[in-house]
Amino acid sequence: MKSIILASKSPRRIQILKDLQIPFKIVPSNFEEKKYEKSKLTPLQYALYNAREKAYDSAKKIKDGIVVGMDTIGAINGRVLGKPRDKKHARAMIKTLSGKTHSVITGIHLYDVKTKKELSAAEITHVTFTDMTDKEIDYYLKLGMWRDVACAYAIQEKGELFIERIEGDYFNVVGFPVFKFGQLMKQFGMPLWDLINK
Amino acid sequence: MKSIILASKSPRRIQILKDLQIPFKIVPSNFEEKKYEKSKLTPLQYALYNAREKAYDSAKKIKDGIVVGMDTIGAINGRVLGKPRDKKHARAMIKTLSGKTHSVITGIHLYDVKTKKELSAAEITHVTFTDMTDKEIDYYLKLGMWRDVACAYAIQEKGELFIERIEGDYFNVVGFPVFKFGQLMKQFGMPLWDLINK
Repeated sequence: MKSIILASKSPRRIQILKDLQIPFKIVPSNFEEKKYEKSKLTPLQYALYNAREKAYDSAKKIKDGIVVGMDTIGAINGRVLGKPRDKKHARAMIKTLSGKTHSVITGIHLYDVKTKKELSAAEITHVTFTDMTDKEIDYYLKLGMWRDVACAYAIQEKGELFIERIEGDYFNVVGFPVFKFGQLMKQFGMPLWDLINK
Repeated sequence: MKSIILASKSPRRIQILKDLQIPFKIVPSNFEEKKYEKSKLTPLQYALYNAREKAYDSAKKIKDGIVVGMDTIGAINGRVLGKPRDKKHARAMIKTLSGKTHSVITGIHLYDVKTKKELSAAEITHVTFTDMTDKEIDYYLKLGMWRDVACAYAIQEKGELFIERIEGDYFNVVGFPVFKFGQLMKQFGMPLWDLINK
């Protein structure tokens, strides 16, 4: 059985994969994403492109295994929201999302280092924020949960207070679309149920 | 500021409330639910009724505070699925849910022990299972995650492998509808943001 290699050091991704109790190794990629605005891609294409490049970059560092590249972005009105630069930027992002529905898109790319076989897919979840008052946004920002996360929020780290509803896979919003990943692994001939029951 | 009293000893509910970093105490209720089939209520009425009775029962044991009663059930085709009695029962439940969408309903009841003020609401989330093979159901049951949970699954404990999508509040499916709870607390004059920022 080939090893699963996660091309990411995101603590949230690592935790979800650990919770699945599937053996895996971490080989972070050094791929540096271009700014979306310079990419000339749609948000979906951009997430798929980044996922693939991350997988390819990690693959250079190993001799065997199935590399899993993932990239999660938030999109609203054709714009992509990355990680906020600072608190002011975070405030602008939360204001943009407040009272509206945005899309969380994760590109997934599986790449077999030896056979060069590869597969990719994207998962999209719609996330609806309640209308937040300026005071509520202030309270939220004070907690510091906006740091180092795309769109300035993590759904399971106080996001639950202002997210009214989602449509799609919850785990995609956390950053690891488990269901779609399982489908791809099945197509790769490595069903997750088999790995879990080893 | 009044204390929040959780009328539940469900570890999942306790964890979600802890993650919110809101001070609370636990005073489990001793209310014993009737079987749904004997209740002559709709699934929604049943969840609200149980939540209220749990809140009332805990309230008897204390002199002050806002008691939070909650009851989460799964419903499909007008039937309510409780906790499975044994593995065979769990298998039947998963087979019923496989390839279909069911509703997860949580009744919430807030009760102020001193003023007798009370408020209630329900949250509904739609959960879609992928079509599972008998072999996949076997694998899942072997893990033992069906024990002591309504509908024989917990979304965050291997449920993520076969749940394609949800519509609504994810945390409701875990058993604590955070967003709706926050709305009720606001109506109660105790906005969660104020409690978190204390």
